[in-house]
Amino acid sequence: MPSTREYARQLMERCDVLAVHTMDEGRITRPYGTTALANARTQLTEWMRDAGMSTRVDNIGNLFGRYDADPAATDPKTFLIGGHVDSVVDAGRYDGILGILSGIAAVRRLLDAKTRLLFAIEVVAFADEEGNRFHTSFLGSSPAAGLWDHSWLTLKDDDGVTLEEAIRRSGGDPDALAGDALNPASLLGFIEVHIEQGPVLQDRDQPVAAVSSITGSDRATILLHGMAGHAGTVPMTLRRDALVGAAELVLAIEQIGRSVPDLVATVGKLDVEPGASNVIAGRIELTLDLRHPDPKARSLANLDVRDRLQEIVSRRGLVSEWIDSPGFSDTACDPTLTDLLRDAIAAEGSEPISLFSSAGHDAITLATITPVTMMFVRCMNGISHNPAELIVEDDIEVALRVLNRFLVTVAQR
Amino acid sequence: MPSTREYARQLMERCDVLAVHTMDEGRITRPYGTTALANARTQLTEWMRDAGMSTRVDNIGNLFGRYDADPAATDPKTFLIGGHVDSVVDAGRYDGILGILSGIAAVRRLLDAKTRLLFAIEVVAFADEEGNRFHTSFLGSSPAAGLWDHSWLTLKDDDGVTLEEAIRRSGGDPDALAGDALNPASLLGFIEVHIEQGPVLQDRDQPVAAVSSITGSDRATILLHGMAGHAGTVPMTLRRDALVGAAELVLAIEQIGRSVPDLVATVGKLDVEPGASNVIAGRIELTLDLRHPDPKARSLANLDVRDRLQEIVSRRGLVSEWIDSPGFSDTACDPTLTDLLRDAIAAEGSEPISLFSSAGHDAITLATITPVTMMFVRCMNGISHNPAELIVEDDIEVALRVLNRFLVTVAQR
Repeated sequence: MPSTREYARQLMERCDVLAVHTMDEGRITRPYGTTALANARTQLTEWMRDAGMSTRVDNIGNLFGRYDADPAATDPKTFLIGGHVDSVVDAGRYDGILGILSGIAAVRRLLDAKTRLLFAIEVVAFADEEGNRFHTSFLGSSPAAGLWDHSWLTLKDDDGVTLEEAIRRSGGDPDALAGDALNPASLLGFIEVHIEQGPVLQDRDQPVAAVSSITGSDRATILLHGMAGHAGTVPMTLRRDALVGAAELVLAIEQIGRSVPDLVATVGKLDVEPGASNVIAGRIELTLDLRHPDPKARSLANLDVRDRLQEIVSRRGLVSEWIDSPGFSDTACDPTLTDLLRDAIAAEGSEPISLFSSAGHDAITLATITPVTMMFVRCMNGISHNPAELIVEDDIEVALRVLNRFLVTVAQR
Repeated sequence: MPSTREYARQLMERCDVLAVHTMDEGRITRPYGTTALANARTQLTEWMRDAGMSTRVDNIGNLFGRYDADPAATDPKTFLIGGHVDSVVDAGRYDGILGILSGIAAVRRLLDAKTRLLFAIEVVAFADEEGNRFHTSFLGSSPAAGLWDHSWLTLKDDDGVTLEEAIRRSGGDPDALAGDALNPASLLGFIEVHIEQGPVLQDRDQPVAAVSSITGSDRATILLHGMAGHAGTVPMTLRRDALVGAAELVLAIEQIGRSVPDLVATVGKLDVEPGASNVIAGRIELTLDLRHPDPKARSLANLDVRDRLQEIVSRRGLVSEWIDSPGFSDTACDPTLTDLLRDAIAAEGSEPISLFSSAGHDAITLATITPVTMMFVRCMNGISHNPAELIVEDDIEVALRVLNRFLVTVAQR
C-alpha cells in the first residue's frame, strides 16, 4: 500500500494536470459552463473512478463521486468532502481544487486499504463557487443545498448569455434544478480542505488549522454620475469628472480598511464610461467588498464608506447610487466536527489552531443542511487568487493524514 | 431664393436626421467602419447631390462632394470645406457634422444663386477623426494629406478586427490608400466650421470666432502592476493594490491640471485587471491626455506626472510602465486665411475674436499640404463629446453668412 507521502505527491501532480484546463492560454481561467471546466470535470471523473467511486453529474454541473459504506452498516449516511472546480481569472492552481483532490486521495487510500467506513463518502466537485461568469456566489452548491432560486436563470454573463442557456449548453436541465437538492436526513456532514489564503499558518509555522467560522461580507455596487466632456476643451474648474470622484472614494475605502483591525475593504472592479482617452469620464461603476469577523464592525465600515461617498459627490457636483449586492452571512462551523478535526490535527503532531475564514466557501450553503467544517492548509505568503498561489507537499501530507484520521474518528462516533 | 435663415434651419434639422445613425440605440455612437457611419454617409451623399455636387468616396471612406469652378476660370484650384462623420461613444450631434453641413449649405446657396466661384469647392466628410475604434487620431484625413503609414493596417479594434479588414469590409482597397493623397498644388485651402467646445464665446456673448492655432497634446498610456489577491484574505497592510495606486495618480493628475492656467489634464480610460469584485486589482492600464497652448508648459506638466507616478509606485511597492502615445503637435492656422475670416466676421457685425483650439481637428493633418483655418461656433456651456452638446440656429445663421462672405473674399484675392 502506498505511503501518505505518495498520495500527497500524486495530489500535487494532479493540481498541475488540472491547471492545463483553462480558457486563457498561459494562465488559469476556468469559469462556469466553459469547455475548460468540462474537461477538468472529465479528468476528475476518471480519477474518482480510479479510486473506486461511482460518479454522477447534477443539472447545474456538480460532479459527485460515491464510495459506498461498509455493507455491514445499517442505513448508512453520507459524508461529503469537496471543493470547487471553477476558478477566478488568472487564478492559482490550488483554490477549490485542493478540496476535491483531498477527498479523492482519502477515498483512494480507503480503497487501497480495502476498507469501507460505516458511512458512504461522496466527493463533490462544485461547478461554480467563485461566480466570475454570472457574478453570483456558490452557484454550484446552492441547488445541492436546496437554496436554488428559479429567478437566477435569467442572470446574464458579460456576453449576454443567460444562466438558463449556459446550463442547457452544459447538458443540464434548468427546470430540474430544484430536484437536485440533497436530502439533509441522508447527510452526516461536510468538510473542505482549502488553502488558508492568509499568512497566519506561515507566521506560526504550522501546516494546517481547523476553521471555526466563515466571516460574512458586505458587497455593493456604487455608481458615480458626472458629466462627460472633451478632454481638450473643458477647463479643469468646470469639470464634473466621475473618475476623479471615484479615485477619491477608492482611497477613502482603503483608508477605512486600514483604520480598523481585521477589516478588509476592496474595490476590485471599476468601469469607466465612455472610457476613451480624450473624453472626461461621465459615469463610473465600481464594486465594494467589506469583510470583518464582527458584523457590527462591518456595518460601521459600511456607514463610513457611505458618508465619505456623500461628501465626495456633493463637493464635486456628482450624483451617486448605492446598490447593495448579495454578500454572504457569517457562518459558524459545527463545533463537534471542528473539535474532532482539531483533535486529529493534534494527534498528527501539529498545533490544533482554529482560524476564521475571511473568504466565502461552499460550506456556507451546505451549513444550511448539514454540519460543516473546514481544514486550512498553509499557503506561501498568504497569496491566493493569483498564479503565485503555492502550497508544499509536506503540508499536504499532513493534511491527508489529518483528513484520514478525522474520517475514522467521525466513523467511530 | 431662400434666406440664410432657411439654410440655417435646414442645417439644424439635418443634424437631427444624422443623429439617428448610431450603433447604440438611444445615444449617438458612430465609429469608423460601421453600418451607422455608412448610412450617415449615404444620407450626406444625397444632400451633396441635391446641392449640385458630384461625389466620390476614397479608400479609407472619406466622402468628397465637388462643386466645379466657374467654366471661365483658367486652371481652377479647389477649396476644401469639411468635417468628420464619425463620433465618440455617446456623442453630441454637432461635433464634426457641423463642418460638413456648413459646406453643403454654402454650396447649395451658390447653386440656388446660380453662381460658381473661380475655384472649385469640395465638401469633405472625413471617415474618422475621433479615432475611437482604432485608437488613432485623424485616420480619415491622414491618407488625404499624404500622411498614410502602411503599418497602421495591422492596428486592431477591441474585437481584434484589423484596420485592413475594416477598410475592406467598408469597400475600400487597403493597398490603394497611398494613392488617395490629394495633390497640394491643386488646393487653395481648407476651412472647418466647428463647435467651440469651450465656454469663451458664451462668456463674451459672441456667435462665432476665428481659430488662430490648434493646441497640441501629449498622450501616454500608463501601466501599474501590483499584486492580485483575494479580497477577503489579504490584510490591508500586505496589499499591493494597483487600483489604489492608480487612484492616487488620477488625483495627482487632476491637481497638476488645476495648478497651471490653461492646462487640461485628463484620465479618460482606466482598465482594471482582473476586474472582479472579490479580487484585489493586479494591473491597471490608464491613459493620460495633457494639453496646453505652450508646448513648454505641457512638457513640464508631463514631467510632473512622471515624478508623481514614481513617488506613488515606489511608496506602494508597485511597478509602472510609461508608453508615449501619438498625440499631435501644435498647428498654426494660416494667417492670411484667418485674417480673411476675421474680416468676414467683423463685416457680418460680430466681434472678430481669435481663439486657440484645445481639441485636435483634421486641420492639423491638412495644414501639411494646404493653408487651413477654422471657425468656431458658440456652444452651450462649452459642452461637447456629450449628448448635451447644443448650438442655436441664430448662431448658425451668422456662421453661414460669415462662411459665404469668406468664400467670396477668398475668390476675390
